[in-house]
Amino acid sequence: MAVITPRTPPGTMELLPRQQIAFQRMLDTIRRGYERFGFVPIETPAFELADVLLSKSGGETEKQVYFVQSTGALANDKRPDLALRFDLTVPLARYVSEHQNDLVFPFRRYQMQRVYRGERAQKGRYREFYQCDIDVIGRDGLPLLYDAEMPAVIDTIFSELGVGGFKIELNNRKILLGFLMSLGVDSPERRAAVMRELDKRDKLGDDEKVVANLVGGDDTQLSVTDARALLTLVSATGSSAAVLALLDAQPVEEPTFRQGVAELREVAAALHAFGIPEERWRLNLAIARGLDYYTGTVYETFLDGRREYGSVCSGGRYDDLASQYTTSRLPGVGISIGATRLFYVLQQTGLVAEGASTVEVLVTQLDAALMPAYLALAAELRGAGINTEIHADAAKLGKQFKYADKAGIGVAVVVGPDEQAAGVVTVKFLTAGQQVQVPRAEVAAAIRRGPTAG
Amino acid sequence: MAVITPRTPPGTMELLPRQQIAFQRMLDTIRRGYERFGFVPIETPAFELADVLLSKSGGETEKQVYFVQSTGALANDKRPDLALRFDLTVPLARYVSEHQNDLVFPFRRYQMQRVYRGERAQKGRYREFYQCDIDVIGRDGLPLLYDAEMPAVIDTIFSELGVGGFKIELNNRKILLGFLMSLGVDSPERRAAVMRELDKRDKLGDDEKVVANLVGGDDTQLSVTDARALLTLVSATGSSAAVLALLDAQPVEEPTFRQGVAELREVAAALHAFGIPEERWRLNLAIARGLDYYTGTVYETFLDGRREYGSVCSGGRYDDLASQYTTSRLPGVGISIGATRLFYVLQQTGLVAEGASTVEVLVTQLDAALMPAYLALAAELRGAGINTEIHADAAKLGKQFKYADKAGIGVAVVVGPDEQAAGVVTVKFLTAGQQVQVPRAEVAAAIRRGPTAG
Repeated sequence: MAVITPRTPPGTMELLPRQQIAFQRMLDTIRRGYERFGFVPIETPAFELADVLLSKSGGETEKQVYFVQSTGALANDKRPDLALRFDLTVPLARYVSEHQNDLVFPFRRYQMQRVYRGERAQKGRYREFYQCDIDVIGRDGLPLLYDAEMPAVIDTIFSELGVGGFKIELNNRKILLGFLMSLGVDSPERRAAVMRELDKRDKLGDDEKVVANLVGGDDTQLSVTDARALLTLVSATGSSAAVLALLDAQPVEEPTFRQGVAELREVAAALHAFGIPEERWRLNLAIARGLDYYTGTVYETFLDGRREYGSVCSGGRYDDLASQYTTSRLPGVGISIGATRLFYVLQQTGLVAEGASTVEVLVTQLDAALMPAYLALAAELRGAGINTEIHADAAKLGKQFKYADKAGIGVAVVVGPDEQAAGVVTVKFLTAGQQVQVPRAEVAAAIRRGPTAG
Repeated sequence: MAVITPRTPPGTMELLPRQQIAFQRMLDTIRRGYERFGFVPIETPAFELADVLLSKSGGETEKQVYFVQSTGALANDKRPDLALRFDLTVPLARYVSEHQNDLVFPFRRYQMQRVYRGERAQKGRYREFYQCDIDVIGRDGLPLLYDAEMPAVIDTIFSELGVGGFKIELNNRKILLGFLMSLGVDSPERRAAVMRELDKRDKLGDDEKVVANLVGGDDTQLSVTDARALLTLVSATGSSAAVLALLDAQPVEEPTFRQGVAELREVAAALHAFGIPEERWRLNLAIARGLDYYTGTVYETFLDGRREYGSVCSGGRYDDLASQYTTSRLPGVGISIGATRLFYVLQQTGLVAEGASTVEVLVTQLDAALMPAYLALAAELRGAGINTEIHADAAKLGKQFKYADKAGIGVAVVVGPDEQAAGVVTVKFLTAGQQVQVPRAEVAAAIRRGPTAG
């Protein structure tokens, strides 16, 4: 048979086992954090019916959708009736609408699955990637307290991930919206154009250029005064108290603006009540996150000194999750961690190490005749909750140690005929370069204890 | 906007949260079992390059493949270049071939992901389902001990799953192959036809009918004597020692047959050394599992009294994992648990219950003014490792208890102004219908202790 070159499809992240273990630990930490805060899991199929999935989304999304069809449908030249999900929000909307009579509200779900986008493959951009989402969905109403719960979850998880410092940044979309309304920017299209220019601020790095674009742009058409006022607003820095004071002092009557300020103040107060230290969050009035979906609080999260990689956890509040599927009004708030992207950033910045294996102990083979003893020893260690592998190949002991080392296994146990006769076992801590001989009955305890310090 | 009826795609298993939690616990048990035995995780993309994925498979598989293409490719009427994996074995072959220089051998991987098949949707048949696989892959050779390790893993996991009794059944493909060779059935096609007739045995329930088909079939053409001899062989029952004795007594010189018997004897001996009680496994010479892939030991697993649902964990030994991708010889042995199918069977047979939520405690809201105290209490419980939800809606207490009950949350804590002033908390165990009042500092401990017995 001709040999076909095995290739991973472009735009996907495929990991070697020790990297996969590090990635899996990251997912476990995220999941534990979500569960700790009382979110419950759901999973949805990777594909949805195409007409259901694409009922709401615009042209941009559709260009990136992967369609799915079986061989039979392909042969019949039929239009595909399935498509891979491109996020977890549309499947959530479908799920909640479909199952709403079987759910309890507020519905607090977490979902950690892969999503698919037919993007041009490039470094750090993926066609398949994990999203880890939480959302709280209310029926008819949803208290603002949940808006403050999201940063509490982010704070807990990112602290546990051990990725160094980070900052959660919050805004309320009504503030920007109301401010633009007060400037007479009434059409959604013009507001969207202004937002796009604001979003280029970080990239341009020069507020005067942003002002020039806002003034000169056909779609934006702001006066120089208004553009400057807008830039001054979104550039507000300092403590949350200082930013809120600056907002109070704005000569803006527009009720949408005032409501946004009131909501942001309530959320900031709740963040203090949640006990999140203010060095890990701040109000950033420049955060917009697109114009059409979020309607209140919005979040972004940046790793300290890694702002150029963009937000690693984002989300916000929305008025209605699923108007395309149901007449029930389902307001919600949620965040998403792009785990594949986050792992990529951590790899690039050296913040994630290829860690130890999930395998804790290798039972080496010194004498094939002792295999029953090795099997019994391994069964005992497993019974004590220790992940244990048996080396079934009768290789030289040095080669077996090398295998353990390369595989990231920290402990090897050795039993030869003499040890077997004496009822003892040699426990070798490979990383520490130490070994101890212990009675057979104490092996598990000795392994749990680890190498002696120094 | 017109409302589109939200529908889950046919042929997929979508669960409500409490079922999802039960399913997730099942997956966690499987994963813990795999890790306990020293397997390490990998994940591969849901789609593969179509030419890579379909390099080996025959027409039957291809008919069930889901092809994937982006909107752009669809518009250009291009042949799809991606396809969803239909199992985890072909992706494993691709992975090991592609990364073989970065892996350590024997390579012991577990993989728990969904696979996709364009099957006709029917009850209990899925187009998307989880497979949970382990395989040990050697380079050039692989000791037979690993063949005995597989049932040890199955035994551990199915015991921990708590699904009642089960039986692991083993055979060696060389026994049937060699026996047929000794009968002069030399062509692979004829042997495959005989196997197919044998596979109908359970369904026909009458060995005489099977004999008639084997004798009368154009593809099989066995003599009555040979067909009877074959049926006698595959019907062997009794202890492993008895079955091995029967095999020894067969008047068959064919070396393949003899090698199969020797291997089966060695594996059976190792199963005893692994300490698996013989009431949980047996030799079943009728197990074939198709003819083309497996070359030695084969496994099936049946739940006691649920044989009609088929094997819930199967696998076997193969000579070469990836001849289509590499010239390296990669022998291996593995098993697969079809988790979605298993969960379906457990649901059908009442062996899985909708369990408690992952949320352990609901902090109820009696007085909105006390919210800071509720938040502090919740943070404390979370810090103690207890999954805790706050009820942010100021509903009546009875309604909050009902919410907890419906959501499967076992404990509610209540703090009113009096309790707050006295520094105490009421802990209500909803399932047990008990409540206790404890000092604020002892809440976590009281919850961990649970309701008093009786």
